[in-house]
Amino acid sequence: MAQEYDRVALIGLGLIASSMVWGIRRAGLAGEVTGHARSPETRAIAREIGLCDRVCDSAAEAVQGADLVVLCVPVGAMGAVMAEIGPALQPGATVSDVGSVKRAVIEAAAPHLPDNVHFVPAHPLAGTEQSGPRSGFAELFDNRWCILVPDGAAPEATARLHRFWQGLGSNTDEMDADHHDLVLAVTSHTPHLIAYTMVGVADDLRRVTDSEVIKYSAAGFRDFTRIAASDPTMWRDVFLTNKDATLEILGRFTEELFALQRAIRQGDGEMLHDYFTRTRAIRRGIIEAGQDTEAPDFGRAPLRKG
Amino acid sequence: MAQEYDRVALIGLGLIASSMVWGIRRAGLAGEVTGHARSPETRAIAREIGLCDRVCDSAAEAVQGADLVVLCVPVGAMGAVMAEIGPALQPGATVSDVGSVKRAVIEAAAPHLPDNVHFVPAHPLAGTEQSGPRSGFAELFDNRWCILVPDGAAPEATARLHRFWQGLGSNTDEMDADHHDLVLAVTSHTPHLIAYTMVGVADDLRRVTDSEVIKYSAAGFRDFTRIAASDPTMWRDVFLTNKDATLEILGRFTEELFALQRAIRQGDGEMLHDYFTRTRAIRRGIIEAGQDTEAPDFGRAPLRKG
Repeated sequence: MAQEYDRVALIGLGLIASSMVWGIRRAGLAGEVTGHARSPETRAIAREIGLCDRVCDSAAEAVQGADLVVLCVPVGAMGAVMAEIGPALQPGATVSDVGSVKRAVIEAAAPHLPDNVHFVPAHPLAGTEQSGPRSGFAELFDNRWCILVPDGAAPEATARLHRFWQGLGSNTDEMDADHHDLVLAVTSHTPHLIAYTMVGVADDLRRVTDSEVIKYSAAGFRDFTRIAASDPTMWRDVFLTNKDATLEILGRFTEELFALQRAIRQGDGEMLHDYFTRTRAIRRGIIEAGQDTEAPDFGRAPLRKG
Repeated sequence: MAQEYDRVALIGLGLIASSMVWGIRRAGLAGEVTGHARSPETRAIAREIGLCDRVCDSAAEAVQGADLVVLCVPVGAMGAVMAEIGPALQPGATVSDVGSVKRAVIEAAAPHLPDNVHFVPAHPLAGTEQSGPRSGFAELFDNRWCILVPDGAAPEATARLHRFWQGLGSNTDEMDADHHDLVLAVTSHTPHLIAYTMVGVADDLRRVTDSEVIKYSAAGFRDFTRIAASDPTMWRDVFLTNKDATLEILGRFTEELFALQRAIRQGDGEMLHDYFTRTRAIRRGIIEAGQDTEAPDFGRAPLRKG
C-alpha cells in the first residue's frame, strides 16, 4: 500500500480516530500521525499506549504541516474545532471529518475554512458500542463502507481521500449531503433512537421487577442494549443535527407500528404473518452483501457461567 | 448426569426441539427420544440427520409410553396437538411445552389434559434467528434461563423437570403465568415487534433507494434484521396470544418515543444526553449477569470481502 499523506492529523482520539491510527500503521498510509484530544486524560492515555507519533496539547499544533486533517469529534463540536484550526492549516491541505451527519458538518465548518484548503467530508459506517482511545482496532473499517461527500471539492483531493479510506480497508462511495443524511436516518439514526427508547422503557420497569429485565434479557432485548450503550454525546449531536430526516423516518415508523398494533388488537394473524415473512427476506440480502455474519446469533461465543 | 426420563417425546422438530435432542444426548438425560413433526419434509430431514431414536408419523404414536412429552410447536397450535395426544398419554406422564407465552398455552391445553398426567408448562429463553430441524445444537441452552410455570402441578413432577432443564445446561426459575407473560413482553415480545417494524419501514424505503438500505446496514440497522428474521408463524402466535401485555408495553414505548421525539424537535440536548447515559448502564448489568458477551459488536467475526 502506498503512502498517501506525509502527515495526518486526527482531532479527537476516540474509537474512530484510534482505529484509524492502527489502520494507517497497518497499511503504511502516512509518514507521521499527530493527534489531539480536548481532555487531558485522553491525551495521557493516547501517549501511554503510543497511539500517535505525537500527541499535541492543542488542535492548532496538531494540524501544523499536516496534508490531511480529520476531525473525529462529535458533530456538535465540529464548528468550534474548525474555528480553532482554520488559521493553522497548511495551504493545500485536505480537511475531512468522520461525523454521522453531513449537512450540519458542512454548515458548521464552511465559515471557518480558509480558501486554500480542500474540504472533503466523509463518514465511515463503522463502529462498536465502545468508545475512547483504548477501544480502537485496525480491522474496524475492513469491508465496511465509507461515504465521501465532496460537495464541490477538487477531484484530485477527493480521489486521494478515496484511496486513503480504501487503504484502511473500506469500500468507498460518494453521496450528496442531504441524501446521506436521509439514508443514515433509516439505517442508523432511527434504529438507535428506537433502541434507546426500548431500553429506557425496560429500565423504568426494572425498578418494579428488580433484576428480571437483565436476567431474562437474552430473549431479544439484549441486542437493543448493545446499541443503546453507544456514546451519549455523539448520539445527542446526531439527533440534534439530523432533526428533519430523523423526524421524517420516525413518523413512518410510528405509522407502521400503529398498523401492527391494530392488527394485534384485532387479531389479524394474516397481516402479521405476511409482514414478518417480508422482513425475513431483507436479512438474507444483508448477509449476501457481506454486511453481516451468517452465523446464528451473530456468532456470539457461548456465555460464561454467571 | 443422571437419566431423568425413560422416554422423552418431542412434538414439533424445529430449532428448540432439535437442540433439546442434541442436549439430551450430550447429558444422557433420557433412555429414548421420540419425535413427530406435522410436515413430511421435516420428518424426512429428522430421519436423515438421525435427530431422534424414532421419528413417528403421528403425534399420538410418538407420545405412547413417554414419561415426558414436550410440545415444541407454535403457541397457536398447542390446543390442537394436546387434543390429539390427550388419549394416548401414559398415566403419570409429565406434559410440558416450550412456548413463549404461558397463560394462552395453559388455557388451550387444560380442556384436553387427562387427570392422571402432570402438566408443567415451561419456557426456555433461548433461540437464534434460524429455524427448522437442522438448526439445533446442544449448547443452545447453556447458561440461559428456563422458566417453569407449574400452575399447581405436583412438586415432584416439577422438581424433575427442573433437573431435566438443568441437565440441558439451563438455569431454572419458577414464575406465575401472567407475570411471565408481562416480563417476556418487555424482554422479548415488544423488542421483536419493534424490530419487525423498523425493518418493514426500511424495506418500504428500499424500493425508493435501491440497495442502499442493505449496503449501509452495518451502522445499526443490521442488528434489527437478525431479530426480524425470526420464524413468522411463531411470532404471529406470540402477538395474538400475549395481546394484552404486548399492547401495554407498546403503549409505554410510544409514550417514551414521543417524549424523545419532542426533545429532538425542541432541540433539548440535555434531556437526550441524560436519557442516553441512563440506558448505557443497563448494558453493563447484562454483561455482569453473564447474559451477553463483553466483546465489541457481539464479538462478530470480521466480515468477508463481499
